[in-house]
This record gives sequence, structure tokens and C-alpha cells, in this order.
Amino acid sequence: LENKDYKGLRAHLSTLHAPDIADAMEQTQEKESLLIFRLLPKDLAVEVFSHMEPFYQAEFSELIREEELRDLVDELYFDDKIDYLEEIPATLVKKILRNTPENERKLINQFLNYPDYSAGSIMTIEFVDLKKSMTVADAIKRIRRIGTDKETIYTCYVIDNERTLEGLISLKELILTSEDTTIEEIMNADFISVTTHTDQEDVAEKFLKYDLLAMPVVDSENRLVGIITVDDVLDVMEEEATKDFHMMAGMQVSEETYMESSVIQLFKKRFPWLAVLMISATLTSAIMESYEALIAGMAILSANIPMLMGTSGNAGAQASTLMVRSIAVGDVEFKDIFRIIWKEFRVSFLIGCSLAVLNYIRMYFIGGYSPTLSLVVSLTLIITIALAKLIGSTLPMVAKKIGLDPAIMANPMISTILDALVLITYFKISSAFFPLG
Amino acid sequence: LENKDYKGLRAHLSTLHAPDIADAMEQTQEKESLLIFRLLPKDLAVEVFSHMEPFYQAEFSELIREEELRDLVDELYFDDKIDYLEEIPATLVKKILRNTPENERKLINQFLNYPDYSAGSIMTIEFVDLKKSMTVADAIKRIRRIGTDKETIYTCYVIDNERTLEGLISLKELILTSEDTTIEEIMNADFISVTTHTDQEDVAEKFLKYDLLAMPVVDSENRLVGIITVDDVLDVMEEEATKDFHMMAGMQVSEETYMESSVIQLFKKRFPWLAVLMISATLTSAIMESYEALIAGMAILSANIPMLMGTSGNAGAQASTLMVRSIAVGDVEFKDIFRIIWKEFRVSFLIGCSLAVLNYIRMYFIGGYSPTLSLVVSLTLIITIALAKLIGSTLPMVAKKIGLDPAIMANPMISTILDALVLITYFKISSAFFPLG
Repeated sequence: LENKDYKGLRAHLSTLHAPDIADAMEQTQEKESLLIFRLLPKDLAVEVFSHMEPFYQAEFSELIREEELRDLVDELYFDDKIDYLEEIPATLVKKILRNTPENERKLINQFLNYPDYSAGSIMTIEFVDLKKSMTVADAIKRIRRIGTDKETIYTCYVIDNERTLEGLISLKELILTSEDTTIEEIMNADFISVTTHTDQEDVAEKFLKYDLLAMPVVDSENRLVGIITVDDVLDVMEEEATKDFHMMAGMQVSEETYMESSVIQLFKKRFPWLAVLMISATLTSAIMESYEALIAGMAILSANIPMLMGTSGNAGAQASTLMVRSIAVGDVEFKDIFRIIWKEFRVSFLIGCSLAVLNYIRMYFIGGYSPTLSLVVSLTLIITIALAKLIGSTLPMVAKKIGLDPAIMANPMISTILDALVLITYFKISSAFFPLG
Repeated sequence: LENKDYKGLRAHLSTLHAPDIADAMEQTQEKESLLIFRLLPKDLAVEVFSHMEPFYQAEFSELIREEELRDLVDELYFDDKIDYLEEIPATLVKKILRNTPENERKLINQFLNYPDYSAGSIMTIEFVDLKKSMTVADAIKRIRRIGTDKETIYTCYVIDNERTLEGLISLKELILTSEDTTIEEIMNADFISVTTHTDQEDVAEKFLKYDLLAMPVVDSENRLVGIITVDDVLDVMEEEATKDFHMMAGMQVSEETYMESSVIQLFKKRFPWLAVLMISATLTSAIMESYEALIAGMAILSANIPMLMGTSGNAGAQASTLMVRSIAVGDVEFKDIFRIIWKEFRVSFLIGCSLAVLNYIRMYFIGGYSPTLSLVVSLTLIITIALAKLIGSTLPMVAKKIGLDPAIMANPMISTILDALVLITYFKISSAFFPLG
């Protein structure tokens, strides 16, 4: 394809969707991607750029001329522009904003200062504003005039002269209502909104619950400062789920995708928790050592430790995962804690007993172990599974209550605690049954 | 509030949003929720019902009279109707559909038969269809006439007389284009679509990538059979993330939320994997037993086993979680496998050496263990972390390749495999350094 048939290539490109071209450019070499980019019509080029991953946007900015870059950035939607400027070095930001008018530069700086993961950091300013005195006909005329560059025209925002948000009106209602009705009569004054500092996870939950396409963001005086559209909420949901997955596996949260991350970045992401957990596991060594005589006298005892720790770890992981996820989707609250403990107690009793029976069959009837040892292991199973389920289900809620992210109390943390408890339980029971140990 | 001030209650209810009323009804007693429901204006009642959890919808259906229920179900959007009918007992379905015209009943049965988690199972039929010969004015007139009951009017679908999908047109374009333009001139013939059997996860990925508000679903002859709207995609994304979380913690996937699930349901969800993993862990006991003499002679050796297994399990969980998530969001594909192995190899080398040094300091300098034992444990760490990272990152991809869900290859499965490998490595190295064992 790339043998100088530029005309053919250009024709081919214009039949493709912007996200696909962005993907392709990320996978070709610098020179070729620059070539492709310059063949694109202006509008499409802007769209393609906004669909590139932040990492490649930054890389690509080094390739093209400064004026080209400035024109490009100028054309981006406001939220995409902010996302981009956050990603690149400060010196480049300065260069790009050199010719920007003072008031826009101020606005950009304000947006760059909203905290990560807040509503302010994902909102945009390209919305349609209406006045409540307008008629439907006026409103549609206004949408026709200013609508082209707006992120959405499907929800319009009714504000007064101080920019206080008074109501919302959907284009659907405008289209379906007679032309001389005033906006005030049909606007929805009872709308859902968030402030610039609302966490993006709460924003996403509201979109889910109320089936919204866009949501207004107001400041502390209820003045409209921006809107969030549903396409950005899809990204937020993916990002938040990824954050929870990573936290639950004991990793630092970062925004780079796997393929973009360098070896050092991956190391930094993973090492801290591994080190903390390894040091905490010293506790298990101490417990083992205090029972050294018992183990030396009955080495067969230690043969069951990996299985016991594995099973209780898995049981704890099930409970904690279920709970972290239930908290994240808003199914469970702290006030439910006693109902949950009671439920987990019954579930763990059922599971513990079933596994104990299964284990007894395996050890005594199939494996030919002594009935006492088989019993000791089975008893340990019942007790440690109860502990695993109780700790696994309550710790995430306690974390949430004291203001931590529940996901931090997930599998690695809980299995380290459980390992210690399993050993203590197992050795206590063993000592009781084998008093000579 | 509930002391017979029905008028006040009714006025209060009409200021609330449907999802909030649904929440409230789910938390009150049967009698009261029935009372609340009967006070609602018809439209709002339908909306509230569609926002109730399936479990409560089914419960609630038992409370109200059959005619009432039939009227209610009749008013639901088609996709909500199908979701509801899937949830209730077959006898009730029959009762409700008794008066439904033959052709609608046929359609309902067809929709009920689409596989779970397919595009067909989440689509709806309430869309606006246009012909390409229409002018923009005609199109807007048609939207005004039939738009009220449609799930969305923001994307309209251009079909021919055989219902073949020829293009899409957004309301934004219709509003911004002059009235005498024909639809054919401005429609987008180069649209993204899926078929009824596309997996809902792929549907969600397309929405994310192309920033869509709605997507057409076609049959094998490219005839338009339904559309999927973005609000349903938000639900899908939440559902799919939950599915992955549960699978990765070794649980069966179910649709009930935690609070809705009975003890028996929770037991069924958790027991199978725990049992399978417990039995697999027998392997670790066998390995331990084969080194019984070594352990008996040097009980201190076994004191480090929990820490070694825990650390490698955590390292494996990090790698597998990162990989499962990267596959789910489309960042990684099978062809990347060698680049990933090489990357993981370098990361694991860095992590392994750092942890080994840390461990040596803890054991030899702080704990006062022998230099040989400290060295053995540190060497085991380096090797098992490399194994953990390699297995953790490649197994999910292999699973994907052979058509399994990558999430199944996650933490519990991998840590069971790793436990066995850790033991073998540790004992092999120990035997080499302590030949008398």
C-alpha cells in the first residue's frame, strides 16, 4: 500500500474510522505515521489525534512542526485538549499556549488544576446554553447556530445571567413539543448534577443509575462550569475497574497500559507491595519456628500446610472479592455488616464441612493416612474457612469505613493474615491430638 | 410520612427520580411498596418498575393483580420487557402474554431465545427508521410523529423495503442540515454494526472505541433487527467487570447480587472451585512427603515455606491480573506473547534480585540465620518469582487462544501451580546445599 500511491492511500484513509487510523498509526513507524497524518483532511486529522493513546500523542508531538501542532491542539475539544496538555512536558505546554488569548489560558490552567479522578478533570465546556424565556423555536434556532462544535446538543442547559443552572432540556423534548412553548414550561428543573470535586467513580454510578447521556458540573455557587458526556464515562468505568483489579492484586495504580509501560515502571508498580507482604510473612516463619519441635517429631504434619494455606487463601479471596465488588457497585453498605457476617458464617459452615468431609475421604480412605491426622486436618479446614470468610468479607467494609479504598484489603493482604491464622490453628489442634510433639 | 397523608405522599413522590423510588420500594415492606406503587402516575409507575432489580420485579409481580401486571408489562420498553420475562416463572409468562397478539408473541419468543450475553439479548426494537429518499424535513416530521416511544431518536436508521440497513443519520446532522437535503446525501453509509450473536463484551468495546450512543444490530442478511443504546452498555460493562472479578477469585458467575443471594446460592457459587483446588493441592502434600527426611532433619527449612509460597503467589497474581485485564480491554493480543515474555523476564529479574537482597538482610543480618540458609531462601525467591511472572503472564493468553475465558487462569489456579513449583525449587536447592538432608 505504501509505494507512493498517495492518492489511493488518501482515498482509502477517508473511508476508515478515526479510531482505526489512530490504531494503525500507533503501530507503524514514525516516518510513515507522519506521512499518513499529513494525508488526512484537517477535520479527520484532529479526530484521529484525539483518539491516539496519550503516550503516542506525546511521542507524535515531537515529530510535527510547532505551528502544525498548535493548529491541531487548537481544534481539539476542550476536554481532549486538557487531557493532552496534562500528558506532555511543561516546556511544550508553554510553547503551544504561547499565542492563546489570556482568558482561555486562564481557563486551561484552572482545568489542569482539578484533581485527578475528579469530575472537573473529565468535564468539557462545549455545551449548548439556553435561557428560560426562549421559545422552543428560539432554542432550536440557537442550537442550529452554535451546535456544530458542541460535544453534545442532545441535552441543553438553561442558565440565568449569573450562569446559575436552572434546568435541563433534552433535544428530544424540544423536537416533540410545539414551537411556541417556552423553555421554562418544559425544562426539567429537578436534575442530577455533580460538583467539580466529585469523584469520577460517583459520577459513573450516577450515569448508570439514572441512564444519562450527559450531566452538568456546577461549582459551589451552583454555577454551570462544564458537562460530562457518556462517552467519557465509558472510559472512566474501564479505568476504575482496572484500578480495582490492580489494587486487588497488590499493584500500584498507574495510567500507562501494559504495552506502554517500561520495565522500570512495571517494577515500581509491583515491588512495593511484594516487599511489604514478604516482610509481613516473617510472622509465619516465627510461628513455624515456635513449633519446630512438633514439626521435627512429625514431619508429615507440615506436608498439609500448603494445602491448608492455599484453601483458606482461596476461600478468603472469594469473600473479599465478592465484597469489594459489591461495595464498588453500591450493592452493600456498612450498615449491612451484621447481616453479612451472619450470612458468611452460614455459608462458611456449609463449605467448611463439605470440604472437611471431602478431605477426610481423600486422606483416610484413599491416602491411607491415620484417622487422627485426617481428622486434625479436616477440623483445621472447618475453622480456617470460617475465619477466611469472616475476615475476607469484613475487612473491605472496615477499610471503606475508615476512608481507605476497599480494594486494598483484597487478596494478598488477606491471604498473608490468613496464612498466620491457619498455622496457629493447625498447630494448636495438632498439639492437642498429638501431645508428644 | 406513611400516616395516611396520601395526597402529600403522592406530591412528594412525583418530585423524585424513578430509580430512587425503585430503591425505596425495594427496602420497604410488601404492603407499603404496593401502596406507593399505586399512588404513582401511570408513566412513572412503569419507569419505576423498569428500574427495579430483577429479583424484586419477580417478587412484586406476585403482589399485584394480573390485569394490572399485564398493563404494566405492556408499557415497558421492549428490552426491559424481555429482561423481565426472562426472570419470572414460565407459568406467569404465559399468563401475561395471553392477550398479546400472535406476531408480537412470536417476536418475544425469538428475543427470549437469543443466548445470554449476546447482542441479541440486550437490544431493543424501538428505533426510528427512515428511507433514503426522504428529505431532512420529512425525516424530522417522521421523528415528531413516532419519536415519543422510541428508546432513542438521536440516531436514526435508514433501511430499504427489505429492512436492509443502508446507513445511519444522527439527529445532530438532521438539525444542522438544510431542510431540503435528502437523507441519502448526508447519511453515514460506513457505520459500525454487530450481529445478534456478537458477544456483549465486544459490543461494549466498540462503544468505547468509537464513542457511540447507539449501535445497530443486523441479522446474517444485513437486515436491521434491533439497536443497542449506550445506557445498556454501561450495565454490560459493570456486569462484565463483575464477571471477571468473580472468575478471577475462583467463583461461578451468577447474576444475583450479594444481598439477593441465598446461603445455598453462595455455597454453590464458591464450593466447586474450592474443592477442585483443594484436591489439586494434594500434589503439594505429595512433594512435601517425598522430602520428609530432609524436613525432619532440618525443621527450620519448612519455616520459610509459607513466606516463599505467599510471595510467589502474590507475584503470580500481579502478572496474571495485569494480563487478564490487558486482554479484556484489548491492549494485548496473542501475537505479543514473545515481547511480553521478554518484558516479564526482565521485570521478574529486577524484582527477584531486590527481594532476594531484602530477604538476605532480614535473615542473615537481622534474624541471625546461617548464611547458607539465607542464601538458599534468597536463591529460591529469584527463581520462583521468575516462574511466577512467566506463568502468570502467559497462561491467560494461552487460555484466550484456546477459547477459554482468560479470567479463569487467574489467581487461585496459578497459585496452586506455583505452590508446587516453589516446593520443588526450594527442596532441590536445599538438597544441593545441605546434602545430608
